[in-house]
Amino acid sequence: MAAHPEEHAMRTAIAASERVRGTTSPNPPVGCVVLDAEGEVVGVGATQPPGGPHAEIVALRAAGERAHGGTAVVTLEPCAHIGRTPPCADALRAAGIARVVHAVSDPNPAAAGGAGVLRAANIDVHSGLLADEVTSGPLRAWLHFARTGRPHVTWKYAATLDGRSAAADGTSKWISSAESRAEVHRIRARMDAIIAGTGTVLADDPHLTARTPEGALATRQPLRVVVGDREIPRHAKVFDDAAETIQLPGGDPAAVLAALADRGIVDVLLEGGPRLAGAFVAAGCVDRVLAYIAAMLFGAGPAALGEAGVASISQAWRLRVEETTMSGPDIRVSAVPRGR
Amino acid sequence: MAAHPEEHAMRTAIAASERVRGTTSPNPPVGCVVLDAEGEVVGVGATQPPGGPHAEIVALRAAGERAHGGTAVVTLEPCAHIGRTPPCADALRAAGIARVVHAVSDPNPAAAGGAGVLRAANIDVHSGLLADEVTSGPLRAWLHFARTGRPHVTWKYAATLDGRSAAADGTSKWISSAESRAEVHRIRARMDAIIAGTGTVLADDPHLTARTPEGALATRQPLRVVVGDREIPRHAKVFDDAAETIQLPGGDPAAVLAALADRGIVDVLLEGGPRLAGAFVAAGCVDRVLAYIAAMLFGAGPAALGEAGVASISQAWRLRVEETTMSGPDIRVSAVPRGR
Repeated sequence: MAAHPEEHAMRTAIAASERVRGTTSPNPPVGCVVLDAEGEVVGVGATQPPGGPHAEIVALRAAGERAHGGTAVVTLEPCAHIGRTPPCADALRAAGIARVVHAVSDPNPAAAGGAGVLRAANIDVHSGLLADEVTSGPLRAWLHFARTGRPHVTWKYAATLDGRSAAADGTSKWISSAESRAEVHRIRARMDAIIAGTGTVLADDPHLTARTPEGALATRQPLRVVVGDREIPRHAKVFDDAAETIQLPGGDPAAVLAALADRGIVDVLLEGGPRLAGAFVAAGCVDRVLAYIAAMLFGAGPAALGEAGVASISQAWRLRVEETTMSGPDIRVSAVPRGR
Repeated sequence: MAAHPEEHAMRTAIAASERVRGTTSPNPPVGCVVLDAEGEVVGVGATQPPGGPHAEIVALRAAGERAHGGTAVVTLEPCAHIGRTPPCADALRAAGIARVVHAVSDPNPAAAGGAGVLRAANIDVHSGLLADEVTSGPLRAWLHFARTGRPHVTWKYAATLDGRSAAADGTSKWISSAESRAEVHRIRARMDAIIAGTGTVLADDPHLTARTPEGALATRQPLRVVVGDREIPRHAKVFDDAAETIQLPGGDPAAVLAALADRGIVDVLLEGGPRLAGAFVAAGCVDRVLAYIAAMLFGAGPAALGEAGVASISQAWRLRVEETTMSGPDIRVSAVPRGR
């Protein structure tokens, strides 16, 4: 079973790439494992922050001489272009790598061609190993960005089983469980940016930071993006020094995403409120819905999603459920749009 | 492994009892399997409609002489009282049964004592086999009825992921998938009664019958119960001759359930609308929530649950999720109340 150590190596590469998510944009969070000629792991690497080495280079440096005659297992096709760093395809050849196995081909015309360069150097190249795991996982947002030029937007919300995001008097602490809230903070720490509307910031005065369950700030903080024209007081928590914050006036989702793309933002968490979420859904600017449904009934109170341009059921925004799992006592649903 | 054929027999007894659900009330839907002295299945039975023989009698008749020295595996402790039929405990003894295995003890003081009568006749009695499957499955409603004197109420609804039970213009055909709708019809066919409010009947003119996907009426139809004071026109579909229909004025859930209990109704499906469902939730009269959540977003439109006496999150009705599964493209959630 020659594939087995390579599959195991790809899983290690995926895990390594997950650990750098949120630190690499606009570059992709890539993971690489170098196996020596006997199939032993001799180097593991992941993409360093922009300007730093790519995953392949980190893994090759760790492997040293032992890379010679070995295999590089990498989540994305190695680049063949000179960007801020020299092409990885050249480095792999120079290190004497005999075989390259990647999960996903590079959709970026400027970077693509790595496989061709490698093959021309008589390196055996295999593509597609665990491709689904990588495209739906660590490279999902970046592949979306590479294909569309627009950051990938995950709309996250919490609501009761009867669809309320707050009680009649506006109280909402806490609809989702401690487990779900901790998970959202872990997700925030891997995002490039968090978006919230001015209405939500004025109503709830959220930090919009990534914190541990004990309340400490995570090592990395996403950019906080406040969307809308209403003035936010300087003492609002979103303007504390825990993370950078920008306010984008207007509220047109496409314009917001274009401004974020210009800043190299690839992976975005949209946290509401209902009006902003409705605008993003209506504009076709939600790429994934992540719902935490609490096992509670209110019978009154606002919904998580406001006006989204749907007057009749024939105009409904239709989704496909990717996964339904429990998050503590809550139901977590991940779904992706499939049109209207 | 002496227990193995008995466990297998209990699963057969459970399946037999499921097939008679909706036909036995106010008696419990019980299943019984008789094994001969070698452990072979020689008789299977389930409770017949009121006045007809209990499950044990049906199974014993099928087994005939082969019951002698055998084992009766039954979902509920055999009765020891004379109701409309003679006690099953006596029949088991007379048939020469050597061992009785039941899942659940009878909570009904008038019927209980069967195990004692059997033991006094030197019959080996074992209780508790697959008890959880039976208490959460075929005997759930009847055990609730025996404990509380009130029919068991399952509130069933369909809504979008953002909590809407219709679009802004009132259209709702169809929020749930064909698979979910077919399942609801199968559930209806096993219920004693379906409840809907006059508002829903006036707005939607539903049949409230159990039908096959092709539109044919199921063999058995639950009682249709219209709750509320508004007058329903005689030509409404709910008054067609497909099933019996009653209208209960007022709308107090406890009074509705008391009237249904008087008619021997044990297992009820509450199908809305929002106002009636809210009243049932507020009165603590919902024993199970069965939600079909469609992978759709509306952003506007009514919620499935109306006013339920919750002004603030501290007053929320809290549930425990029993199970989350897919029903075609929909998410099906079964949850039970755990107070407020």
